[in-house]
Amino acid sequence: MAAETPLFITLEGGEGAGKTTQIVHLAGLLAERGVKSLLTREPGGTAIGKRIRAVLLDPDHAGMAPETELLLYMADRAEHIQTVIRPALTDGTSVLCDRFFDATIVYQGAARGLSAEWIGRLHDLLFAGLKPDLTLLLDLPPEAGLARARRQLEQGVRAGGEGRFEAESLDFHQRVRMGYLALARQEPERFRVIDAGRDEDRVRRDILAAVEMFLNRRGDKPPSN
Amino acid sequence: MAAETPLFITLEGGEGAGKTTQIVHLAGLLAERGVKSLLTREPGGTAIGKRIRAVLLDPDHAGMAPETELLLYMADRAEHIQTVIRPALTDGTSVLCDRFFDATIVYQGAARGLSAEWIGRLHDLLFAGLKPDLTLLLDLPPEAGLARARRQLEQGVRAGGEGRFEAESLDFHQRVRMGYLALARQEPERFRVIDAGRDEDRVRRDILAAVEMFLNRRGDKPPSN
Repeated sequence: MAAETPLFITLEGGEGAGKTTQIVHLAGLLAERGVKSLLTREPGGTAIGKRIRAVLLDPDHAGMAPETELLLYMADRAEHIQTVIRPALTDGTSVLCDRFFDATIVYQGAARGLSAEWIGRLHDLLFAGLKPDLTLLLDLPPEAGLARARRQLEQGVRAGGEGRFEAESLDFHQRVRMGYLALARQEPERFRVIDAGRDEDRVRRDILAAVEMFLNRRGDKPPSN
Repeated sequence: MAAETPLFITLEGGEGAGKTTQIVHLAGLLAERGVKSLLTREPGGTAIGKRIRAVLLDPDHAGMAPETELLLYMADRAEHIQTVIRPALTDGTSVLCDRFFDATIVYQGAARGLSAEWIGRLHDLLFAGLKPDLTLLLDLPPEAGLARARRQLEQGVRAGGEGRFEAESLDFHQRVRMGYLALARQEPERFRVIDAGRDEDRVRRDILAAVEMFLNRRGDKPPSN
């Protein structure tokens, strides 16, 4: 059954899309299905990654060169893959990751003006193309996402110091959204686009349905070992 | 004359080779020759680079994946090139840099087991092959260099917190030295190997002679503008 083959699932989406909440629901679903999973995030999934994250998110560094930003995300990813993701998958544990490679393409590519194709070549050279089995894109209009993120900041539910991308223009966030949707169109097999503009429970049920469907399809093909 | 064409000169070498002292002498020589120069270093030549340097040199991070270390050096370099080196050269100012690309090849390649050819491909993809005009390799046996570095640490002349590479085995430093010498053999036009095992003044005079010779040769070919 599916439990035998570790999955690598990523959640993607703009600010305030609800990834952090929904990934916990998803871990619960997998546990019910007997799938042991590890919940992690980028940037900041390792001790060294947290230090890198602090450099990336420091509002003083808003003038950082796009290439620098890209390489810091890549450094965080290298540490994360080598010390968290690969060991877990090797050990038979599924991995649920809050943002991964697609976020790099979209934020640094679509929004910072770096070529998506160039970032892809860099990623292949660095990570030999490690790809998620399934990517859930939590899609909503940036106005709604930013309003939600702002509310969470005010309520203290969202950690401070993450304001760097939130402070970008609405146009930036529009390009992020369009960038994500373009990736989803390019790889319909890997992506599931979830309408994240509705209430938490509706979104949760959509995500669980999408993952159930994916697991059942995998279940049709039992692992060879 | 040479003053018209900005130079990009790098100093390379293992721990305790005297780069930090000698680069100041070199800036003085260039000033006498009417060559305006900017003195900088890697890692840490920018504000963001200093933050990256702190992550790299933290002894708690000794277990960092080699790819992570490489990418942090590359991130520091991207920021350094975009905000310091290229603007200076464009402005007609020569650049003297304490460690650059060759250090990456040698430390991450020869010593960490990453392929030098692979690092070279990465560098080309990232920086479109920006190369120094002249690289001075301050060469000495690692035993001597490490003893000197240790003395400077004790005397408080050398900043603390740089202990990560100094704490590596002698074998590591041997491989660093051999790596540097191999690069110098591959690019004899760009490299000048300086025997840094002698007293400071002798080393200084050798460096100045090597740079004078280089400047005079360049002087034979006046810039086209």
